[in-house]
Order: sequence, then C-alpha cells, then structure tokens
Amino acid sequence: MGLLEDTLRAIAPLDAEAERAAAAHLDSLTKPPGSLGYLEKAVRRYAAIRGDGAAQKGRGAIAVFVADHGIADEGVSAFPQAVTVEMLRNIAGGGAAISVLARRFGLDLRVVDVGVKTDTSAAPFAGVIYRRIGAGTANFARNRAMTPEQVTGALEVGIAIARDLAKGGANLIGIGEMGIANSTSAAAVLSAIARIAPAELAGRGTGLDDAGVRHKVRVIERALEFHRTSLTSGESILSAVGGFEIAAMAGVCLAGPALRVPVVVDGFIATAAAAAAEKIYPGLFEYLFFSHRSAEGGHALALEKLGVRPILDLDMRLGEGTGAALAMNVLQSALDLFHSMATFSSAGVSGKVR
Amino acid sequence: MGLLEDTLRAIAPLDAEAERAAAAHLDSLTKPPGSLGYLEKAVRRYAAIRGDGAAQKGRGAIAVFVADHGIADEGVSAFPQAVTVEMLRNIAGGGAAISVLARRFGLDLRVVDVGVKTDTSAAPFAGVIYRRIGAGTANFARNRAMTPEQVTGALEVGIAIARDLAKGGANLIGIGEMGIANSTSAAAVLSAIARIAPAELAGRGTGLDDAGVRHKVRVIERALEFHRTSLTSGESILSAVGGFEIAAMAGVCLAGPALRVPVVVDGFIATAAAAAAEKIYPGLFEYLFFSHRSAEGGHALALEKLGVRPILDLDMRLGEGTGAALAMNVLQSALDLFHSMATFSSAGVSGKVR
Repeated sequence: MGLLEDTLRAIAPLDAEAERAAAAHLDSLTKPPGSLGYLEKAVRRYAAIRGDGAAQKGRGAIAVFVADHGIADEGVSAFPQAVTVEMLRNIAGGGAAISVLARRFGLDLRVVDVGVKTDTSAAPFAGVIYRRIGAGTANFARNRAMTPEQVTGALEVGIAIARDLAKGGANLIGIGEMGIANSTSAAAVLSAIARIAPAELAGRGTGLDDAGVRHKVRVIERALEFHRTSLTSGESILSAVGGFEIAAMAGVCLAGPALRVPVVVDGFIATAAAAAAEKIYPGLFEYLFFSHRSAEGGHALALEKLGVRPILDLDMRLGEGTGAALAMNVLQSALDLFHSMATFSSAGVSGKVR
Repeated sequence: MGLLEDTLRAIAPLDAEAERAAAAHLDSLTKPPGSLGYLEKAVRRYAAIRGDGAAQKGRGAIAVFVADHGIADEGVSAFPQAVTVEMLRNIAGGGAAISVLARRFGLDLRVVDVGVKTDTSAAPFAGVIYRRIGAGTANFARNRAMTPEQVTGALEVGIAIARDLAKGGANLIGIGEMGIANSTSAAAVLSAIARIAPAELAGRGTGLDDAGVRHKVRVIERALEFHRTSLTSGESILSAVGGFEIAAMAGVCLAGPALRVPVVVDGFIATAAAAAAEKIYPGLFEYLFFSHRSAEGGHALALEKLGVRPILDLDMRLGEGTGAALAMNVLQSALDLFHSMATFSSAGVSGKVR
C-alpha cells in the first residue's frame, strides 16, 4: 500500500480527553480564567491534536518546498523564473527571510527542491534536500500541470518530510514555499475549491501592476475553463492547475494529523495546499493552524470562505513560511505559559470572590 | 527644573532621514518590495524614532508597574484586593505570565511597586523595585484618586525607570501593569479622554458577570459626573480617576520619545496611560507601538477612536505587559530580518522584469 493511503488511514479523531486535561491545567494558572484568549484555545487544540493532555513541548520545524511552474511562460510574474533557483540557494544558504526567522526561533528548517526548472542536484546546494518530481510543472494554460503520478509523488514527498520531522521530535510543522508564478497556480486551486472568482483571488504576487493582475486573472479564468471537466477531486485539481510545492505542502497537511503533529499553514499559496488537502480529507482543518492573513489578493476572502481564523494579520505577502514561523512562535509561547506559569496554589494567590 | 519638564522639552521630531535610509536598505533585501508588510513599516518607524538609519538592535525591556486602587472598595473587581500584592510577588518571582514571556524572549523585566496597599518594602520581595507613591489611590467615587503631587511623582517614577532602561541599552520598552480594580480606573480615564461612554468601554476585568459590569459602569458614570469640572488636562484626569501605575506608564510613554526609545503599549490599561500621555504631549502616538487589541471591554473602540492600529489581535485580556512582550518579539523579528537578510546583489538574485 502507498504512503498516501497509509497516511489517510492513520488520521485519528481529536482527543477530547487531552483537551479537557489541558483546559483544567490552564484554569489553575495565575491569571483570570480565559484571559490569555487565543493562546489558551491554541493550547487546548494542540493537546487535542497531539493526544497529549500534558501538551508537551518540542522543537518546531519549517519545511520549505521549492518548485517551478510552466504557467510562468504566460508572463504572470513580475520576477524572472531564474529567481526560483536563485532563492533555493539563498534560502538554504541563510540569506532569505525564512532563513533568518528560522535561526531566530530555533526552528528546524528543511529546504526541499521538489521540482525547480534548473536541476542543481549534480552539484547540490548545501542544505537542500533534493526530491525532484520534474523540471517544473507543465504550462496549465495548455496542458495539465502534472500527471496523476506526479501529484501522488509530490504529496508523498511532503508526507515523507513530515514523517522525518515527526521522528526527530518536531511538535509543530510549518509549511512554506518558493516558486515563481506559484500565486497564479494557488489562485486557480483556491478558485476551484472555494468557488471564488479569479478576479477576487488573484493578487500582485511578487509585484505585478494593475495591467499585470488583469492579465493574470484572464490566464486563470481561461485555464479553469480549459480544465473545467477535471476539477473534481483534490488530486484532480492539483493535477490540472497545481504545483509540485503545493502538492508537497498538501502532503504535509495530510501527514501532520496522521502523525499527531499540528501543521502551521503559511499564507496564500500554503492555504491553497491546505484547501486541496482538505478536499482529499474533509475535516482536516481541525488539525491545522492558519498562521496569518496575507495581503496577497483575496487571501482574506479565501480564509473566510474556508471558515478559518488566522493567528496574525501583519500585511505580509512574502511566503517562504515567514508567516508560519511568526505564528509558531506565538504557539510555542502559549506552550511556555502553559508549562511555566505558577498555579494559584503554588504561588499563594487568592481566587475569585464574585 | 523637574524630570517631567525636562522630558517634555527633550522630545525631538521623528528623523525622516533615518527613515529613508532604513527604507532604502529594506528595498535591497531579497524579497519583493514591501512584501514584509507591517514588519517593514515597523522598522522604518523604529529608525525614525531612534534617529538611526541603521536601525541597530538592542535588548528589549518590560516595565511592569503594580499599584492598588481605592475604587476597589466599590466592589468593581471579581478578585479580592489582596491579589495585587500576591501578584507583585508572583511576577517578580517568575510565576506570572509576563515572567514566563520575559524569560522566553530575553526581555529585561522590571517590576515596580508604585503603590500597592500592603507595603512589603521593609521585608522586600526579591526582584521588586520599590517606588511607592502611596498605599493605593483614594476611592475616586468619593475623592480625587491622587493629589497633583502624586501624579507628578508617579509620572516621574515612569520617567526614571525608562531613563535607567535606556542607559542600559534597551531599544524597546514595553509597559504593563497589575492592580486590582485598575480596569475601572482605565475605563474612566479613556472615557474622559476619548469621549466614549463608560457603558461602551467597561469590560469584565478579571471576570465580572453581567450584573457586575453594570455596577462597574454606574460607578464610572457617577465618578465622571462627580469629577466633571476637573477633567481638563492629562494630569487632572489622572488626578481625578487615574492610578499610580497608570501615571507611571504614562511617564514611560513620555520618556521613551525623549530618549529615542520606542515604547510598546500593552492592552486596555496601558492604552489609558498612553492616552493620558498624549493629552499631556499631543502627537506622542507616533513614538509608540500599540501591541494588541485586547478583548477587554471597549478596547477595540478606544483604539479606533485614538486612531491607532495594534500589531496583534489574540483576544488576550491579561495585562502585565503580556501583549507588549509578544508584539516586541514581532518588532525584534523585523529588526533581525532587516539586519540578517541577504541583498539581491550579495545573494545573486535577479530583480524585477516588469
């Protein structure tokens, strides 16, 4: 049996008993009940996902998946396609935004080439994990982006990375990406799943002007029309208009719940991956944390349609997992509070009078 | 001349040149221009406040001011007044939420008794700085909360603490507080300054029920009516309905700009302090960061009326500087990105094509 089937089968329900245990401990801490707001909710959900009422801590990890997109040929990005491989090197080399944040927060950063156009695996960049599905996807304006086998392959790259991180003790896995033109692919995926018009979803990506955005919208509209009969399942949508890195992130979203490791979803592109994963396994969002509301296109609208609330809202639109890294720090802070605060009885603090 | 006059005189305009220098460096970093959103804005403003285009880093500090309130006699809090001194010990002893966050983020935590009812200075708690203005304020339902001399004294406690932190190299100062019944005082201060009805501002504090909140609103309404002729200046409002810790935090808000150290304002109570400081020195908000939108009462409305945007929105309502600590970490993360990301030229990454 395959890794994907194994994974879907391994997803267990949330652990209500663990959640109750965590909630009881939260109420014993020296603070008005509930006054840590979202931080308390997050710890309770963490305990439920982990199946661990003690909500034990661990080291967070970030997996950044990098790939190229044939749709770049349609002129939908403000930056040249060469930037993908250049940023692959920069992320692994420590110079990208996510590299800086991962160092700051002590996150285990995994940088995965899942299908960059330029193949550097023969003279590999230090720090890059090569799991290439191809040299970029096909141009989905004219062809399906991936074969079904490539979809499964990319999903399983994500699953394998998540398994490896979980084995290493990761308690949270953030997902991020880099790939020139991938906001076009993500908008197409989200449009197909959340039923939002491309014009409401597509944004400036790395910096398109108004005419550029209008062109991008038309490219997405035509592609969705071209593929309309194949947009039925999560896998078929990924095959039609997805990307290798989007499918790999979807794989992490499926693997985290099976491994009892909460997944922290980055911004616009990662949300498309989470939406595809949820289409493959309905109910999956309960196991995920959505890190932030991105300034990219219709991300706010997409989150609303998907019925999820993001942790942060900082007008970021960089990707790479940068929003996930910041939100993971909020979650780890909540765990620190849970573990290190005094209780009313240990600190000799009086309780409520009315 | 007094510390307060000195401080007001020392506030210099924001440094537009430093802001431009920081903005130029931000645009050289390997990311689409502006894609770090609020983080970029924050670094630019930090540079302008610091008068430092290089936006040098430093260690953040949190000053937590603790005091009691005579208005507690009116039965406006869900917890007994004894909790103030118990929490003074707990915060300094490492068991409170802010103690945990300060450790996590490496913040220099200063815990200041600025007027707790129970005087513990003869057998001092380890880690507490004693700068007592009195044994709690007077009950402002019947008297002014403080004399004008006490207001000045408390403002100057804040100024002195800020000077000490700045001398020690603090690059950001967060302000927080603890004091049973201080959400009643803060609501009265904010109501007088932002012209919002008490019923729209007053919240549950540490956990009042609906009847408790209605009672609290009536107490504030009557007090504002009782003091109506003296609610003219920032100082007179603090004297009428303020608190020692609120005035001390206002002192930090005034001192930070004079010292070129941005102040990070916590939640509901700290916002009242910032509003009082701004009434003393109009235009002050440009030098402050508002850390989060609290779930307490009408904090969201107050922030809106004051025209400021908070960094975080996590439904927290604990105080102590907990929101400030989390937001300071966002600001320090932004500085890390500014200093440690590669530039397009250093990393050999291509620029925009269109």
